[in-house]
Amino acid sequence: MKLLTAEYLRRVGTGIFTACGAPPNEAAIVAEELVEASLMGLDSHGVMRFVQYAEEALEGRVQPGVPLRIVKETPSTAIVDCGFNFGPVSARHMADIVAEKGQQSNVACVIGQNSNHVGRLGTYAQRVAAQGLVCLAAANSSKHGHWVVPWGGREGRLATNPLAFAAPTRGQPVVLDMSTAMIAEGKIRLLMQQGESLPPDCIQDAQGNRVTDPKAFYGPPHGTIMPFGSQHGYKGFGLGLLVEVLGGILAGAATSVEHPYVNGLCLIAINPEVLCGLERFKELMDDLCTYMTTTPPAPGFSEVVMPGTYEFRARDRRLAEGIPVADETWRQIVEMARRVGVII
Amino acid sequence: MKLLTAEYLRRVGTGIFTACGAPPNEAAIVAEELVEASLMGLDSHGVMRFVQYAEEALEGRVQPGVPLRIVKETPSTAIVDCGFNFGPVSARHMADIVAEKGQQSNVACVIGQNSNHVGRLGTYAQRVAAQGLVCLAAANSSKHGHWVVPWGGREGRLATNPLAFAAPTRGQPVVLDMSTAMIAEGKIRLLMQQGESLPPDCIQDAQGNRVTDPKAFYGPPHGTIMPFGSQHGYKGFGLGLLVEVLGGILAGAATSVEHPYVNGLCLIAINPEVLCGLERFKELMDDLCTYMTTTPPAPGFSEVVMPGTYEFRARDRRLAEGIPVADETWRQIVEMARRVGVII
Repeated sequence: MKLLTAEYLRRVGTGIFTACGAPPNEAAIVAEELVEASLMGLDSHGVMRFVQYAEEALEGRVQPGVPLRIVKETPSTAIVDCGFNFGPVSARHMADIVAEKGQQSNVACVIGQNSNHVGRLGTYAQRVAAQGLVCLAAANSSKHGHWVVPWGGREGRLATNPLAFAAPTRGQPVVLDMSTAMIAEGKIRLLMQQGESLPPDCIQDAQGNRVTDPKAFYGPPHGTIMPFGSQHGYKGFGLGLLVEVLGGILAGAATSVEHPYVNGLCLIAINPEVLCGLERFKELMDDLCTYMTTTPPAPGFSEVVMPGTYEFRARDRRLAEGIPVADETWRQIVEMARRVGVII
Repeated sequence: MKLLTAEYLRRVGTGIFTACGAPPNEAAIVAEELVEASLMGLDSHGVMRFVQYAEEALEGRVQPGVPLRIVKETPSTAIVDCGFNFGPVSARHMADIVAEKGQQSNVACVIGQNSNHVGRLGTYAQRVAAQGLVCLAAANSSKHGHWVVPWGGREGRLATNPLAFAAPTRGQPVVLDMSTAMIAEGKIRLLMQQGESLPPDCIQDAQGNRVTDPKAFYGPPHGTIMPFGSQHGYKGFGLGLLVEVLGGILAGAATSVEHPYVNGLCLIAINPEVLCGLERFKELMDDLCTYMTTTPPAPGFSEVVMPGTYEFRARDRRLAEGIPVADETWRQIVEMARRVGVII
C-alpha cells in the first residue's frame, strides 16, 4: 500500500483523462471528484476508478468533451442530455444548473439523460448546499444494474438506487448519502475474495432464499440483493422506487427496458432564504447538530455523530497523511498512464 | 366490534366537530380525513381519533375555524400559519396550495407553522398526486414527541418523523408512507396491553440497552425508540434528520426547543408535464408497476405489491363491508356526541 497526496493523485488523474481525449478542464473535474471520494474515505468510488473510467473513454463508452445540452427547460426545471461525457463532468454541471435555478426560482429540479457513472452521489448535493441551498439527490441505474429485488420478490428489478441530501450549516454541511439496498455489489465481491460471510438479510440465492454465502450471489444462477431495512425491507423498496421515479421516470426512461445510460441523476434544490431565511436556517442547523451530538451515547457507542462527520474526518486525516492506495490499484494506474503516454 | 359505513361515520364526525365549534365545511374535512384513514386500514389514524380531536377543540388546543394565513410567499414557496386549526384542515389547504404552485411554477415547496396533528401523512401526498404531480411529504413533531434516539444515542432527540411520496399512474397512485423510526408509540402500548414482546431492535431501555419488553419503554425511567433500519439504523436516523430539516427547520422552528405545534408539515410538488410529460410519466409509472408486480415471489411471499396497494385493497373491502370500530372506541364516540349535544 502507498500513501499518496491528493494533489499528486489529481495531477495523475488529470493527465490520464486528458490523454484519453478529455479537454483539460473536464479531465481535472473527473480527477478531482474521484480524489475527493478517496479523501472522504469512500475508496470504492475513488481513485481505484481511474483505470475503469480511462478504459471506458478509450472504448468509446465515455465520450470525453461532448457538450452537455439542455433539451427541455423552464425557469425551475431542466432535462440535461449528458451525451455520455464522463459522469462527474455532467453531474457537476447539473449541480451548478440546479443551484442557479434554485437561487432564482427558489425550488428547482434538474434531471439527466445519457449519463455515465456519476461517482459519489453526495458530492453533488454538497456542491449545491455550499451555495446556501438544501439539496436532495437521487441516482438510479439502467436495467443491467437491477440486482435488487422488490420486497417479497426473487428477481432483481431495481439497482442499489442511492439517495442523498445535504444542508448547509455555519460549519461543514450535513450530508446523508445512502444506498436504498442492504449492501453494495462491490462489498459482496470483497467479502467473497476474503472468504467471509455476509451479514444476515443482505442477499438471496437464485431461488429467493436469504443466505449469507457471497458465492450464492454470483452463482450461476445469479442471486439478488435485498432492499434496505431488514424486516422492514418494504420501506427500503419504497425508497428505491422513489429514486427510480426521480432519477429515471421523470427523465422519460422506462424501468423495464435496457438503456445505455449508467446513472439517472435527479437533483432538487430548495432555497431557505425565502422560507426561514438562510442565516436563521444555518443557525437552526447548528442547533440541530448540537442537540444530536450532545446525546449521551448508548452502550457500545462512544459518540453520536451527524451524517457526513466520519467522511469529513477522513478527509482531514487523508489531507494530512495522504491517501492509501492499494499496490495492485497503483500498479494498474501506472500501467494505464504508460499505455496512454503519460509520465507520472 | 361494530361494522359501520364510511358515510355514517363521516356524518357522525362532521356533527361532533361542528358542535365543537368548527364551520361545517371544515368539520367535514376533519371527519373525511379520519374516516379515509380508517377505510385505508390505518385505524390508529382513523375514527378512533374523533374523541381526541374533539377534546382538543373543547380544551382550546385546537382552534376550529381560525383562518389560515400565508405569512411568507413566492410563486414557488409558502409558509402557512395554520393557527392551530384542526391539522387535517390546514394540511389539506397546504396540499391545495402546493399543487397550485406546482402547476404554475413546476416545482414548489410549502411548509406549515402552528399546525395540529395532521393525521395520515400519505393522504396529502395523494391529494397532490391526484392533480398530476409527484409529491414528497414530511412531518416532524415538536420536542414533546422526541422519543427516537439519534443512531448511537440513549436519549430521544427526534420524533417518529414520517416521510411519504405519491406519484400518479393511469390507475391508483403509488403511495409510500413510512415512519423513519422502527415502531410507533401506539404499537408499543398495544403490545404491552396484550402482554407481548416487541420484535428486536425496536426500543432501548433508559440506559440505552436494546430490549424487547414494552414496559421498559414506559419505565420510569422512560426508554426510547430506535431509528428505522436495524443494523443500518444510521440510515433511518439520516432520513429522520431530513424530515426534521424539511418539516421543522425550513419553517424556522428550533429542534432543541419545545414548541406548541404538533406536526411540522412540508410538501414538495414536481410537475412531470415539463419533464417527460404527464401522459408519458403515467405510462412509465404503469410500466414500473407491472415490472415490479410481475416479479416471481420469494419463498414465504405470495406476491409483490407496490406501496399503497394493501391500503387501497382495504379501502375497497371496507367500503363494501363497513369499517370495523372497536366497542370501546364506539362507546367513547357516543359519549362525546351526547356531551356536545349531537344526535347520532
